[in-house]
Amino acid sequence: MIHLSLIGIGTGNPDHLTRAAIRAMNAADLILLPHKGEAKSDLLDLRRAICAEVLTRPVRIAEFDMPSREEQGMYVDVVMEWHDAIAAIWMEQIARNLPDGGTVALLVWGDPSLYDSSLRIAERLGPSVEISVVPGITSIQALTAAHGICLNRLAGPVLITTGRQLRDHGWPNGVRDIVVMLDGHCAFQTLEPEHLMIWWGAYLGMEHQALAKGPLALAGPKIIERRAALRQKHGWIMDVFLLRQDA
Amino acid sequence: MIHLSLIGIGTGNPDHLTRAAIRAMNAADLILLPHKGEAKSDLLDLRRAICAEVLTRPVRIAEFDMPSREEQGMYVDVVMEWHDAIAAIWMEQIARNLPDGGTVALLVWGDPSLYDSSLRIAERLGPSVEISVVPGITSIQALTAAHGICLNRLAGPVLITTGRQLRDHGWPNGVRDIVVMLDGHCAFQTLEPEHLMIWWGAYLGMEHQALAKGPLALAGPKIIERRAALRQKHGWIMDVFLLRQDA
Ligand SMILES: C[S@@+](CC[C@H](N)C(=O)[O-])C[C@H]1O[C@@H](n2cnc3c(N)ncnc32)[C@H](O)[C@@H]1O
Ligand SMILES: C[S@@+](CC[C@H](N)C(=O)[O-])C[C@H]1O[C@@H](n2cnc3c(N)ncnc32)[C@H](O)[C@@H]1O
Repeated sequence: MIHLSLIGIGTGNPDHLTRAAIRAMNAADLILLPHKGEAKSDLLDLRRAICAEVLTRPVRIAEFDMPSREEQGMYVDVVMEWHDAIAAIWMEQIARNLPDGGTVALLVWGDPSLYDSSLRIAERLGPSVEISVVPGITSIQALTAAHGICLNRLAGPVLITTGRQLRDHGWPNGVRDIVVMLDGHCAFQTLEPEHLMIWWGAYLGMEHQALAKGPLALAGPKIIERRAALRQKHGWIMDVFLLRQDA
Repeated sequence: MIHLSLIGIGTGNPDHLTRAAIRAMNAADLILLPHKGEAKSDLLDLRRAICAEVLTRPVRIAEFDMPSREEQGMYVDVVMEWHDAIAAIWMEQIARNLPDGGTVALLVWGDPSLYDSSLRIAERLGPSVEISVVPGITSIQALTAAHGICLNRLAGPVLITTGRQLRDHGWPNGVRDIVVMLDGHCAFQTLEPEHLMIWWGAYLGMEHQALAKGPLALAGPKIIERRAALRQKHGWIMDVFLLRQDA
């Protein structure tokens, strides 16, 4: 019997780990750590550091290379194939490291429910693998906490969306507050900046945390420039922002 | 000088506390605990239990009665007045318990950015009070983790909204996945249930945690009944649900 524990670890600050996450890590027989390539080796180092810091008993750690994603093809097909490939590697690692079964843990960035595929990949492992999820602090909470702001207005709705959605469909109907994630290209550029305020954050919770805010017309161009410089300097960037209409 | 620390404590499971939350609680000179009336005394007990469990040094704890909210008047006016009254009580408590300044902590349910007014109230305290926010696990993460589901579809948007919004405006435009909070009356009843799936949770993270899921047409009526029974039994209820169209 295999138990798979998907553990949300927050977005970089080891102090954002919950007691449940620390407990689940220590209860595991095996922790799988993916290599995501040179550029993101900071993130692997961070996971290694978290393990070193919070494990109070010797838990076996297995590192593995993530399969590469096809560059060509329909987005959905490419992702499906990629998830199949990752599931196969997980199974191989589990078979090799836990031949008699046990509990395997994956350290999921932020919260496992938010723009993360671990659960979808885990479903491919079949009914013999029992899955549990430990929630984690998301990059949205890290953003609002760092800025000291509310996510929603008084009893108002908030949309969580992606850079691609914003670029392809413009400002969404019926909402005045949106959070944008998974955005490689400052999708706020595609909007009329009038009446919009932005709260932006990169490397949230991490050593290089960067914050900016202000009316989009003023802050937007500065964020574009700063983001490019930071990305160049560190080799990678992750950022998220909140936009408010008529704040 | 007063430092005010708004500490997200998650939604009932003390294991959802982060290391940062525990550290901030121990760094405080004063923790303020509100009484919200008989019906919700469970929540006060839970905060007291969290303090007893995680404080490793003697931190002064002051309990105070929350002012009551006017029943009459425009929603926004009523809320503004109520926030003013709470801010006044915080100041009074701080002046009494920390005459020479220091760090005061408030234990905020879930995450301080999500449908919580602590930040809005804190802004009323003026520039002499320095505010910091410690993020917490929200009831949304507690819901998705308990059900072992993703919040969003692959790269799809999600709307976070309230029971009132759903009742007053129906299914929102342009989204297929919505989370509904602050809902006293099972607002899903007002929707055409066809093509909708629901994942529901009450008392998430707590001893009485209750979960239900399924096609809304089938699960909806059962949830209504169960919710009423639970509410009666415990004297209060907090619940949240995710609805997906064409899942
Ligand atoms: C694949 S998603 C994973 C999200 C994660 N599960 C969470 O709960 O935040 C990656 C996106 O999350 C956001 N993100 C994650 N970590 C971040 C960080 N430390 N700073 C800023 N944005 C971050 C960015 O929008 C990034 O494109
Ligand atoms: C005033 S809001 C506070 C939300 C909180 N700040 C958070 O991060 O979840 C209260 C609403 O949150 C949801 N909620 C909070 N705690 C919950 C729990 N333990 N179980 C289910 N829903 C909960 C319910 O929708 C409730 O009406």
